[in-house]
Amino acid sequence: MADYKAIGKAFLDFYYGRFDAGPRENVASLYEPVNGMMNFNSPDFAKGAQEIAEKLRSLTFQTIAHTISTMDIQPTYDSCILIIVTGALKADNDPPMQFTETFLLRFINNSWLIINNVFRLILHG
Amino acid sequence: MADYKAIGKAFLDFYYGRFDAGPRENVASLYEPVNGMMNFNSPDFAKGAQEIAEKLRSLTFQTIAHTISTMDIQPTYDSCILIIVTGALKADNDPPMQFTETFLLRFINNSWLIINNVFRLILHG
Repeated sequence: MADYKAIGKAFLDFYYGRFDAGPRENVASLYEPVNGMMNFNSPDFAKGAQEIAEKLRSLTFQTIAHTISTMDIQPTYDSCILIIVTGALKADNDPPMQFTETFLLRFINNSWLIINNVFRLILHG
Repeated sequence: MADYKAIGKAFLDFYYGRFDAGPRENVASLYEPVNGMMNFNSPDFAKGAQEIAEKLRSLTFQTIAHTISTMDIQPTYDSCILIIVTGALKADNDPPMQFTETFLLRFINNSWLIINNVFRLILHG
């Protein structure tokens, strides 16, 4: 898996491009349909593409723009790709906020799908 | 894997307890010995327990204390446990800094070992 970094970068471009272009629930098709998991700034996860789409639709902001500051990409024991992002986002007219997001991608049926995803806003102490 | 949350919490207590008590390179034994990976605030990883111990020894701070703000824990497709932490740390007499850290744990030879780990300081924009 020599090209895991290229795959990871291409995935991030595609994911945030689609998320920011909206409607954001379109990214739900990038998750493993039944068991893909997303924690969105909460310790509880949405599971499966349908629940994930509903969770994303329920968020209250209208527009969002993500800017990546750092990306770290590692191959895993089970031939997955682990990606950790830190960055900033701007939602509607709110002040910019910092976030961190982790993705675990697995190659299933000829596609790289998200099997695990955690998004967290960084709260400044 | 109903107890993945309990395993994840116990792991974090043990990892940061050992890291903060020092010498911090003692945590190297918690990584998969040959292929465990650690990115420590850098896009390049140290691989294997020996390289990880050397990287940790090379860090310049003397004392460190981690405080966890959030922990998100998910089971994975391959029966691993994914943990994402956000929190604050205090190194020596420096001002507190915020960080995010991701661990992927796998059950190998009767132990939960770290196969992937990424640590990042949060830089305030």
